Amino acid sequence: MAIGERVLMGPGPSNPYPEVAAALARPLLGHLDPDFLSLLDDTCARLRTVFRTTNELTLPISGTGSAGMEAAIVNLVGPGDVIVVGVNGAFGARMADMADRCGAEVVAVHAPWGRPLDPQALLDAHPQPKVIAAVHAETSTGVRNDIDPLGAGKGDALLLVDCVTSLGGIPVEVDGWGVDVAYSATQKCLGVPPGLAPLTVSDRARERMVERSPSWYLDLRLIGDYAMAGSPRRYHHTAPTAMISALHAGLGALLDEGLESSWSRHADGGARLQAGLAARGFEIVAPDGHRLPQLTAARVPASIGDEAKVRRRLLDDFGIEIGAGVGEMAGRAWRIGCMGHTARSRNVALLLAALDEVLA
Amino acid sequence: MAIGERVLMGPGPSNPYPEVAAALARPLLGHLDPDFLSLLDDTCARLRTVFRTTNELTLPISGTGSAGMEAAIVNLVGPGDVIVVGVNGAFGARMADMADRCGAEVVAVHAPWGRPLDPQALLDAHPQPKVIAAVHAETSTGVRNDIDPLGAGKGDALLLVDCVTSLGGIPVEVDGWGVDVAYSATQKCLGVPPGLAPLTVSDRARERMVERSPSWYLDLRLIGDYAMAGSPRRYHHTAPTAMISALHAGLGALLDEGLESSWSRHADGGARLQAGLAARGFEIVAPDGHRLPQLTAARVPASIGDEAKVRRRLLDDFGIEIGAGVGEMAGRAWRIGCMGHTARSRNVALLLAALDEVLA
Repeated sequence: MAIGERVLMGPGPSNPYPEVAAALARPLLGHLDPDFLSLLDDTCARLRTVFRTTNELTLPISGTGSAGMEAAIVNLVGPGDVIVVGVNGAFGARMADMADRCGAEVVAVHAPWGRPLDPQALLDAHPQPKVIAAVHAETSTGVRNDIDPLGAGKGDALLLVDCVTSLGGIPVEVDGWGVDVAYSATQKCLGVPPGLAPLTVSDRARERMVERSPSWYLDLRLIGDYAMAGSPRRYHHTAPTAMISALHAGLGALLDEGLESSWSRHADGGARLQAGLAARGFEIVAPDGHRLPQLTAARVPASIGDEAKVRRRLLDDFGIEIGAGVGEMAGRAWRIGCMGHTARSRNVALLLAALDEVLA
Repeated sequence: MAIGERVLMGPGPSNPYPEVAAALARPLLGHLDPDFLSLLDDTCARLRTVFRTTNELTLPISGTGSAGMEAAIVNLVGPGDVIVVGVNGAFGARMADMADRCGAEVVAVHAPWGRPLDPQALLDAHPQPKVIAAVHAETSTGVRNDIDPLGAGKGDALLLVDCVTSLGGIPVEVDGWGVDVAYSATQKCLGVPPGLAPLTVSDRARERMVERSPSWYLDLRLIGDYAMAGSPRRYHHTAPTAMISALHAGLGALLDEGLESSWSRHADGGARLQAGLAARGFEIVAPDGHRLPQLTAARVPASIGDEAKVRRRLLDDFGIEIGAGVGEMAGRAWRIGCMGHTARSRNVALLLAALDEVLA
């Protein structure tokens, strides 16, 4: 089966860093091999640097970003626990769904799709929630929600933040903002294929985890006993060693470049893309000041006609993948990613040129 | 960081097929790319061939083998549902733990570690269970449990079977044996790195799945709406495309060789290994007739002394990984895998020669 080479500018996955592809091709190690355990420790240390945290419990969950979300939720809230969830897109709604399945009392605080959450509304939603949860970068709308005020005002609550599309692409300050639990995914701004969910948990949150998570696979106590440096390395499940080696390499590429430099690169790519789209009659969904550079949702001008056909021509003729709209924006907006290794002005220029050719 | 090249003869992972490493190094595709969806359909078709089933709901779960176990359980049993679980090793115990976390009524039927389950005892354990569950190949002891009689006698119950270490290495006949739900893992006899759990569900079991699984990530209705051929391809989570491409390649290598030929190769490797160990004073844990060729647990003779030191020398001096004993056999037995691409007489000869040298 012939596999084409793509420029991945959808809402994820992005193109992996070359160092990542090389890591995937290296000989496989077992999950208890001393060399692998060193590599795992180093991966967790790199994750701490990227999350800007000193949290001891910082590790990759063996599943995609949604597994990270589920791990965070099932370990924090049980039957009757109150969780306030900000919902202004598909991923906030997903958090609420997961918490509801745990039997938690879910207090959803809505904002319209495409608008940022009002942090004060989340802080005022319940007098004593166990958890306040929000999505930092809403992949469904391209909106950035403000996290800092939630940490400042959380009081006794634990702050849980979805950093799936933000980590590595825009500033994330887990300790600086008072975030207790954050998770991400490998296939967005970290430039690694999908399959792992980096996760970090503060000591304060660890003390308040549920007694026994409904999920055995995502039970953080059991996982920590294997994955944390200094743990007894007690076998839980077989760690996905090839993917962890890939993550290790991707984080290495990111940190060699420098976090701030990566943020600048994403900011530059996003600005070029959004200016180019606006010049072509697209309307950027997110309001100025809350726009993600790494993920742009843009309403397709009526002149374009069948938007799915245009996306298909970008894929077939130029090997460029962009994403469809979801939810209320399905069929009416595009989601264009400029993340990780893909976040380069060259790719933005290519996409805009290809779009002009397809629309000519 | 220098990474050594290992001969992986622990209880998993095994060495991937060369075709698998090549697949991992290929350009990444997005999870909604038409080329990827073709590859996914082809992967599911290959899984049906390997599982020997026509089940429509046959797909890779985005997690390791234990995620496959959890997906099977959380979708089949809810609060108060009766599940009979055969427990004669660590993985039967794990199934019981997971079912208990779902609120199911767990009827555990024990056999001593190292002995096979008594199928009739499972069939007699409860008058009307919703599910009867057993592990086909107990990775903790090297014991093969008989599945065929469970299918023949299950009556109205659903039969759930753990095929993590059996699939591809010894005959597994999902339809032929009347198995309703089976799952496996990529890193054993399929010769692919860890990270995915192939799963298959009969139509009969699909009709009796729980209304709403406690896990969103492992909800088979939602997953099926994306992953099944002919489904609406509704986005659930971002499929781990690189690993699925690796699985596709591994299944291709396996089916090019032929399932029966792979079974013979595993039978041959296991027989050579077990004879070689017996000749050196090891006692094979599993009784004759219920020995797995692909995974041998063997009691270490007292003459060997510090068994951990010997394992470490095999790793350091020869790059050979074998596994420690678990549970009551920790420190007293080894677990030696001869699975997937590793299951070749050459590797057995190397291990025995290296062992002789270390023990000389």
